[in-house]
Amino acid sequence: MTQAPIRVGIFGYGNLGRGVELAVAQQPDLELVGVFTRRDPASLTPALDATQVFAASAVGEHEDRIDVMILCGGSKSDLPEQGPALAARFNTIDSFDTHARIPEYFDAVDAAARAAGRTAIISVGWDPGLFSLARLQGEVVLAQGETATFWGRGLSQGHSDAIRGVPGVANGVQYTVPSPEAVEAFRAGEGASLTTRDKHARECFVVLEADADADAVREAIVTMPHYFDQYDTTVHVISADELARDHAAMPHGGFVLRRGVTGSGAVQNVQFSLELASNPEFTASVLVAYARAAHRLNAAGDTGAKSVFDVAPGLLSPKDPAELRAELL
Amino acid sequence: MTQAPIRVGIFGYGNLGRGVELAVAQQPDLELVGVFTRRDPASLTPALDATQVFAASAVGEHEDRIDVMILCGGSKSDLPEQGPALAARFNTIDSFDTHARIPEYFDAVDAAARAAGRTAIISVGWDPGLFSLARLQGEVVLAQGETATFWGRGLSQGHSDAIRGVPGVANGVQYTVPSPEAVEAFRAGEGASLTTRDKHARECFVVLEADADADAVREAIVTMPHYFDQYDTTVHVISADELARDHAAMPHGGFVLRRGVTGSGAVQNVQFSLELASNPEFTASVLVAYARAAHRLNAAGDTGAKSVFDVAPGLLSPKDPAELRAELL
Repeated sequence: MTQAPIRVGIFGYGNLGRGVELAVAQQPDLELVGVFTRRDPASLTPALDATQVFAASAVGEHEDRIDVMILCGGSKSDLPEQGPALAARFNTIDSFDTHARIPEYFDAVDAAARAAGRTAIISVGWDPGLFSLARLQGEVVLAQGETATFWGRGLSQGHSDAIRGVPGVANGVQYTVPSPEAVEAFRAGEGASLTTRDKHARECFVVLEADADADAVREAIVTMPHYFDQYDTTVHVISADELARDHAAMPHGGFVLRRGVTGSGAVQNVQFSLELASNPEFTASVLVAYARAAHRLNAAGDTGAKSVFDVAPGLLSPKDPAELRAELL
Repeated sequence: MTQAPIRVGIFGYGNLGRGVELAVAQQPDLELVGVFTRRDPASLTPALDATQVFAASAVGEHEDRIDVMILCGGSKSDLPEQGPALAARFNTIDSFDTHARIPEYFDAVDAAARAAGRTAIISVGWDPGLFSLARLQGEVVLAQGETATFWGRGLSQGHSDAIRGVPGVANGVQYTVPSPEAVEAFRAGEGASLTTRDKHARECFVVLEADADADAVREAIVTMPHYFDQYDTTVHVISADELARDHAAMPHGGFVLRRGVTGSGAVQNVQFSLELASNPEFTASVLVAYARAAHRLNAAGDTGAKSVFDVAPGLLSPKDPAELRAELL
């Protein structure tokens, strides 16, 4: 690289922020300026020794030192406030994933970014993100057809929290699993009526408290309204050692299927699939690739809020257009 | 749609041109002006009654009536000439697929299109095209990893021609088939050394001439230099009726795999797959989606040659950005 590196900041340091820290280190043309935290900076132990930690309150002092800020806070309460506030100071990337609120979030970030001449790419990751691109691509290349998104096999944080709240459960995790029957039905052209419930099963691994009754716990889980009652749910009782040994990772993944029919009646299938050993590290890797694009869009004068749909794929690569055509086209 | 339809022309009418004719009819916002052929227009029987046929020599008379011309000629001799010539008159889409010549072809089309204020998207289809996008996406989101492209199971025109040239063969087809062992090796992280030969097997179905010796034909095929000798090749002798009944379609497909390792050592797998009952109809459907993008880029003043890497995904959809965010993100 003959150009100066793209200087990246990380705002918020949980699993995702840590993943971004590691992902930036894998990129030839990006450089990490530091991590910004609302906690006491001295209390953080970054993954890499070289990583500097700053107080979130001092972020304004770093405006000229950071080309793109990657927002690693949560969608529920952090991003609705931080997204517009930071887009007024930096080019930003975030993984806002509260689907129903995307339009209003986009508008708030867009107004802030436009006013400041910044570029902000929202809702980056794998869903929303790469899966969104697969859904779009499927419907544009197969205009007559059906799309289905299946999630898993993967750890669901919300459902894991739900089972940990059941009396008698000391600890536990929940995996969302695509239903093979639903995949089969979709491929057979019977996918139009499939619901999220039809498409997924739920698999729970629980550690019981000392005096807990396994049957009562199992019954409480499988009948839990909304979370489990309408799904095919299985509950495995395991030991605390087994939980620590086999279920500490955060795997996830899934696939987007498009089944279409072209002019002569030919059935055409497109599939995009992910199998991820670490959900937060993969999401972080996607954010980092889009940071490169945000920097380039801004340098080209293209400001305001964007989604993955607005970003030409070549902008994601450290290679120039001629290299990309020669090597990858 | 409140906007005027995008007016499309088709230049060249073989399997691909016919696929484009059918694909345009599936799109809400595109309108087919007609087909241009170097043959006698009266000799063509289009797939749809409403399709008009014009002489290729009269294409200049239609400059103001066509927003995007879709070039359906071959890469070997048609496109190197037609690509630049038509990009001087129209916005164009083509499926140029002679990989080694893409840089020079791009430059020739770019010069013509720029001079004329036109926009030309080259090498559109599924490979090059959607598979190129998958290769790019794989390496940008997983900076440390390996990519492999597997083709098939699908009919290969070049290899089918080769077996039809063997003495004693009356007719035949050849399918390229991904090797399950190679896929397995790739997934196990042993993909770095796999060659195209390692990754694919070749399956032939031949109809013998009346006096032909099956063993001699089989031997001639499996030992044919370059085409078959270094592959795992199987030859099935079938009847002319079986060939007509079971092998008249043009299925194809394949998959692009990216296996990467993120910061903590987590293995992450991304896969993009196609299973196509009709290769030319699917390729045509991709061309048509990119026609929409060429029209929009040109309307925005973005002229010259482009590849799929230069096209923001949202430009492929008839939906506007706000709809896309609300429905697909």
